[in-house]
Amino acid sequence: MGNVVKFKYEQLDQLLLDAFMKFGFSEKDSKIIRDVLLMSDMYGIQSHGMQRLVRYHKGIEKGTIKVDAQPEVVFETPVSAVIDGHDGMGQLNGHYAMELAIKKAKESGVGIVSVRNSNHYGIAGYYANMAVEEGLIGFSCTNSEAIMVPTYARKAMLGSNPQAWAAPAEPYNFFFDASTTVVTRGKLEMYNKLGKQLPDGWALNKDGNPSTDAADVLKNISAHVGGGIMPLGGNTEQLGSHKGYGNGMVVELFAAILSMGGTSNHCMKDGKSNICHGFMAINPAFFGDADAIKKHFSTFLTELREAPKAEGEPRIYTHGEKEVEAVKDREENGIPVIDKTMTEVYELCEYLGLDFSKYFGDYKPPVAGDMFTGNY
Amino acid sequence: MGNVVKFKYEQLDQLLLDAFMKFGFSEKDSKIIRDVLLMSDMYGIQSHGMQRLVRYHKGIEKGTIKVDAQPEVVFETPVSAVIDGHDGMGQLNGHYAMELAIKKAKESGVGIVSVRNSNHYGIAGYYANMAVEEGLIGFSCTNSEAIMVPTYARKAMLGSNPQAWAAPAEPYNFFFDASTTVVTRGKLEMYNKLGKQLPDGWALNKDGNPSTDAADVLKNISAHVGGGIMPLGGNTEQLGSHKGYGNGMVVELFAAILSMGGTSNHCMKDGKSNICHGFMAINPAFFGDADAIKKHFSTFLTELREAPKAEGEPRIYTHGEKEVEAVKDREENGIPVIDKTMTEVYELCEYLGLDFSKYFGDYKPPVAGDMFTGNY
Repeated sequence: MGNVVKFKYEQLDQLLLDAFMKFGFSEKDSKIIRDVLLMSDMYGIQSHGMQRLVRYHKGIEKGTIKVDAQPEVVFETPVSAVIDGHDGMGQLNGHYAMELAIKKAKESGVGIVSVRNSNHYGIAGYYANMAVEEGLIGFSCTNSEAIMVPTYARKAMLGSNPQAWAAPAEPYNFFFDASTTVVTRGKLEMYNKLGKQLPDGWALNKDGNPSTDAADVLKNISAHVGGGIMPLGGNTEQLGSHKGYGNGMVVELFAAILSMGGTSNHCMKDGKSNICHGFMAINPAFFGDADAIKKHFSTFLTELREAPKAEGEPRIYTHGEKEVEAVKDREENGIPVIDKTMTEVYELCEYLGLDFSKYFGDYKPPVAGDMFTGNY
Repeated sequence: MGNVVKFKYEQLDQLLLDAFMKFGFSEKDSKIIRDVLLMSDMYGIQSHGMQRLVRYHKGIEKGTIKVDAQPEVVFETPVSAVIDGHDGMGQLNGHYAMELAIKKAKESGVGIVSVRNSNHYGIAGYYANMAVEEGLIGFSCTNSEAIMVPTYARKAMLGSNPQAWAAPAEPYNFFFDASTTVVTRGKLEMYNKLGKQLPDGWALNKDGNPSTDAADVLKNISAHVGGGIMPLGGNTEQLGSHKGYGNGMVVELFAAILSMGGTSNHCMKDGKSNICHGFMAINPAFFGDADAIKKHFSTFLTELREAPKAEGEPRIYTHGEKEVEAVKDREENGIPVIDKTMTEVYELCEYLGLDFSKYFGDYKPPVAGDMFTGNY
């Protein structure tokens, strides 16, 4: 697993900005990508944060991510649009699409935008938050390489297919960002690195039977021989497998179907990501007094937090509260990064001709000899 | 549990129409209510079908359901509306609201309608299907009396809060209608009637701890002393409890928050149902060629059905397929009804002055002496 080191926001901020500009993105675009990644780190979702830097770089080198691509609106009405991402960075397509959805929601009340031919776009919630910052309700979803095994199947056919919803509230906005699988691949990778058995109810082996062997499941996923992660609700209808599977289908509908793009089972094949996203912004002012609606929601969220707790449980969370606390922690104590990631960053800096010490001073990551990443 | 008897669609159809007209509804309104209830029975969801007849009658007698209420549009734009149901039948408010959402989606591309002050509206999927029949994507959701215990809570604060999505496809439309709890109260009641232990992962006792004692859980729910049903994903974050809870929150947002209506924790109190619904219709023609989009979705659904099956599993379902088969079975073999329900119906007919034998011929339900329902 390696050790965890902590850095200030500003350090990672500058590194990411410089790195993405070195990859060939404009300063404006680099800032967008950086913002998406660092929100993830600030929210405590390391798997979708700056540790993705090297993966994105590989995608660019392999040509699955096209640096010069510009999102193109191929169909548009006052409430809807379809965008062809032309294999550009997911964050840039996502940001562009959500800005368009927000513009439509401000003018027309609702904006729904579906994006095809994109790439991994980071955390779904970033885009939902963009809407909230404008006083709107935000929705964002994406498909991805197939990892979810549908109920009674043995092969992954849907992605982790997260849905994110955000809505204005006090003192915290409502922010709900969750895969429609029971867990994400990142969780399996963490258990594998720690050499721990997976909990029951997470994963399936290549025959479609439950498995707690993280290494085997991950190996099978990579080899596309079967198995993967269960939908939210497990692998039988008793605990609602068909419900998680159905929620994943709704993501395909908004992302891949409306855009005529690739469904998850066709993602990451033949040198093309083929990833699709869906976005929606809803203007509360088109339903009445937006401030009153916000207050009404805040009251309910407060009632939830103040409801009687289960025996032995100190508190009930509403969605978005943990993220607020994670940001506070990281502002005070820095952003945790696994030192293996820092070795990758060190090597990437060497490769790109960036001065690692400019960002990280005297900090020295484990040297490649101890922990060669093999990335460069 | 009682025995199951089967009747033809036409028998139940005529009974329901006559009964709702006796309750005071117009013929047009009675037909709508009957359609919603019988779709549920035809889909195999008995809990939301004609067995609700007596419950609705009780609601009318108690005054929680107002027969003369008319849904009133209190806020409206070309893409949105808020409706005050004035405590009318949920089915009538739902039908009216979805028709409005469909009209808006046809004209403007999207229609979102939020309804407050309503009552139990039957299966959420009925309204989503209304949109599909017009070639649109349909969404419907409702809150209800609190039954879902939020993650780490001991008291139910959200309803079973179903979300239904439907979209055009061949050879079956996509139809996904599911509570955001792991199961519905109806399932608990069925286990209780059979004297069976609940499976692990469904319910909580009054202290917020897992329980498999159906009778105790149901007693506590009715007495409002704590406990209830777990969100989809169980009661800990390990299997995604916060995700089911989050999906339930999205329902509150569309149903109770946008309409400024009662959230689930305020439903069924002080002689008022206070139930809220949310509806959305999306016009695929506002994203491109609607036929091509339908074909694209159909291809993916076919790929899913034809994907490799888990060891020992004969087939993979796509959402809506089981309903198509249930309808076929009921058309051929009749609609199953528990005979205890038929005793209630017999008593209700006596009470209303309807001739039971007109609908059911020589069939005699268990007599009240053997199984007095105490309803009339």
